[in-house]
Amino acid sequence: MEFLTGVKQPDTLEIKELLAEDLAGGTVKVNGAIHAINDMGSVVFVILRKRDGLLQCVYEEKKANEEMKNLKEASTVEVEGVLAKDDRAPHGIELRIQNVTVLSEPASAMPLPISKWKMKTSLDAKLNYRSVSLRNIRERAKFKIQEGIVRGFRDFLYQQGFTEIHTPKIGARSAEGGANLFRLDYFHHPAVLQQSPQLYKQMMVGVFDRVFETGPVFRAEKHNTKRHLNEYTSLDFEMGYIESFEDIMAMETGFLQYTLELLKKEYADELRILNVTLPDASKIPAVPFAQAKELVAQKYNRKIRNPFDLEPEEEALIGRYFKEEYDADFVFVTHYPSKKRPFYAMDDPEDGRYTMSFDLLYHGLEITTGGQRIHDYVQLREKIAARGMTEEGLEQYLETFEHGMPPHGGLGIGLERLTMKLIGEDNIRETTLFPRDLSRLEP
Amino acid sequence: MEFLTGVKQPDTLEIKELLAEDLAGGTVKVNGAIHAINDMGSVVFVILRKRDGLLQCVYEEKKANEEMKNLKEASTVEVEGVLAKDDRAPHGIELRIQNVTVLSEPASAMPLPISKWKMKTSLDAKLNYRSVSLRNIRERAKFKIQEGIVRGFRDFLYQQGFTEIHTPKIGARSAEGGANLFRLDYFHHPAVLQQSPQLYKQMMVGVFDRVFETGPVFRAEKHNTKRHLNEYTSLDFEMGYIESFEDIMAMETGFLQYTLELLKKEYADELRILNVTLPDASKIPAVPFAQAKELVAQKYNRKIRNPFDLEPEEEALIGRYFKEEYDADFVFVTHYPSKKRPFYAMDDPEDGRYTMSFDLLYHGLEITTGGQRIHDYVQLREKIAARGMTEEGLEQYLETFEHGMPPHGGLGIGLERLTMKLIGEDNIRETTLFPRDLSRLEP
Repeated sequence: MEFLTGVKQPDTLEIKELLAEDLAGGTVKVNGAIHAINDMGSVVFVILRKRDGLLQCVYEEKKANEEMKNLKEASTVEVEGVLAKDDRAPHGIELRIQNVTVLSEPASAMPLPISKWKMKTSLDAKLNYRSVSLRNIRERAKFKIQEGIVRGFRDFLYQQGFTEIHTPKIGARSAEGGANLFRLDYFHHPAVLQQSPQLYKQMMVGVFDRVFETGPVFRAEKHNTKRHLNEYTSLDFEMGYIESFEDIMAMETGFLQYTLELLKKEYADELRILNVTLPDASKIPAVPFAQAKELVAQKYNRKIRNPFDLEPEEEALIGRYFKEEYDADFVFVTHYPSKKRPFYAMDDPEDGRYTMSFDLLYHGLEITTGGQRIHDYVQLREKIAARGMTEEGLEQYLETFEHGMPPHGGLGIGLERLTMKLIGEDNIRETTLFPRDLSRLEP
Repeated sequence: MEFLTGVKQPDTLEIKELLAEDLAGGTVKVNGAIHAINDMGSVVFVILRKRDGLLQCVYEEKKANEEMKNLKEASTVEVEGVLAKDDRAPHGIELRIQNVTVLSEPASAMPLPISKWKMKTSLDAKLNYRSVSLRNIRERAKFKIQEGIVRGFRDFLYQQGFTEIHTPKIGARSAEGGANLFRLDYFHHPAVLQQSPQLYKQMMVGVFDRVFETGPVFRAEKHNTKRHLNEYTSLDFEMGYIESFEDIMAMETGFLQYTLELLKKEYADELRILNVTLPDASKIPAVPFAQAKELVAQKYNRKIRNPFDLEPEEEALIGRYFKEEYDADFVFVTHYPSKKRPFYAMDDPEDGRYTMSFDLLYHGLEITTGGQRIHDYVQLREKIAARGMTEEGLEQYLETFEHGMPPHGGLGIGLERLTMKLIGEDNIRETTLFPRDLSRLEP
């Protein structure tokens, strides 16, 4: 009988391992995809793409055997050679090839110049050839940064006593109802895809006090903009026993601080590749909605057209205002109008036209919506009735409150949007692995 | 201007903090939900449910004020009192109540006896009152264990150089097609919910070498069994530059070993609450499909009806065989018949009727399916053609291979099933937060 006893240590090395100790002069084995071949006449440079970077390999034309001569871009190979230091090579190391084994070969030439530093390829072409375009080092780095954000979110919240949950994406109804729901047939019952895990995460506050989820949400919105997707990854948390919605903003500030440190520490290569300047989250101003509108109206000579709504240009100006006046990259806008918030939002006891809620703007773009929720059963049913909504489909949600719930609140962060702003892109599709929009259902 | 500067430290303490240093004799503040009230006449015990356990609070009837007398189960409260050691109380501590503030009150009495150690409530009732039934300490503990499994999966794979990805759940087609797809209208285009991230994770192997995803998958299967869900959480990984599919089994063995250690270390309370005996993953036997069938046919006097399929009872017997003969909790069954595996599975070069694939059985139940995939473009297209399949909708998937892919393979693990087996439940709904099955779309 054969037995598996754990991870097999491969005899090939990663770049991190090549750099970890002084292996110069020794023979090592690596594998990778051939990213580029630069034939200089007397010597040939073969650039390997490995998961942690590029590795320069080199052989002399005259010493080449058949296998070396037949190498082509996009083949995957195993290379044996002598490691040498070379300041001109990536990471300051170079592999002098002794032996090559070809593991696989492409059937056709590359459709995109992925080995260029900047591809100068249209977004559409990049998305059409997604599994090829992401082989470019800069394109790939964006999604390592995205990984870092999700890791930061989870690790920080674990430390803060949150429990991770997995809530269903198919349901009988969703948090906010309305027109932007994808509908499907569920064994002859009408069903929808969840717009948000909102109702579920609230239901779990009574169980775990603090919960979070990182998962897909679905919005059948019919506008095609640079900032919207019809499916995206939402970073959600919900916490009980809060004193006010400031506790939630404080928790988000802590998450940002933690994550920026994590990126600096563990994603330094990718930050450098993308030339990212990280924002400052040490001190985030908070300004009430109505006051924010007035501040930008005054400073930028803008008329307030609708005191209960914030236009995208106004958001951008609030971002500009706080950058100019406070050198702030982020700003919390608080106390959103009640009519713009869902039924479960807690109204301000001092002025019922507003809610105990907030958005977080990052350089003038909303990346988070959050706030305190109603936790009292009677108050919650009154608000549902006052809005002319039905309780149908909310039975189990309401039962949660009927049987006691602590004061609580939470937020949702759009992962792709936060990634986009962090690396300075201006189209959310640049930071989405496989975007879904009005015209894109493939790949 | 107000500023947020990071997480606010609450003035209330969690159980872990109460135990961390010697606070006995001091005054502390805590919050929580009233899990039970035991009125003993002269003294009243108020059991608080906190996120990290139960805390016994106590007051003397004669010293009680109005607020104390009005406490009821399922209220949430803030309690101030003197911490005392008491070996009879949970965690060996007790809080002598000086002051109580009620934060919220329930509107109705509990529909389920959640404060009992074992609720003895039907599964249906537990699922109908999900947000209430999970307040039971044992019910809740199951999902902490589940969290530990997901954490273990991610942390282990990060360490092994994997990149986390987020692939779309709505698509034009899915990995395996067929009848078990949920279908929906996507802005007047026919779309499906993904059965698995299979095609996407393979496409990303050419970019990141090693990728993983933890997310929902959807299967419109029309059978209602104790082991199936129509939506579940899949732990998926895919890795490049493998020498054989054994590398994948070795990686899974490593994941199990890592995760069992994590559970022992960080989820000891929940393991104790649920009385779980962890399985042994130090050494997992691997047996070819055909041989496994013969072994159980011989030992248990069973006739082999279909040499190319494994019946559930046969799976259970294989589990029993390896427990009896090798004291093994897990067994890899390898070389599944080609006709039972999807088109992308790599056939065994020595016998094309079988594939370089495996299932992992845990006490006789399949919890993982995995294997090596075809990485050669020509071979892949030939197999698609041989199966009479169309390439329609597979264009971008195939392009990935056209432009070079390393030898690779991967696996998918059903999270709820693994949790079920680990804690010794026999219905997967017991370890699913909000199950979706033929008859259950709510809550």
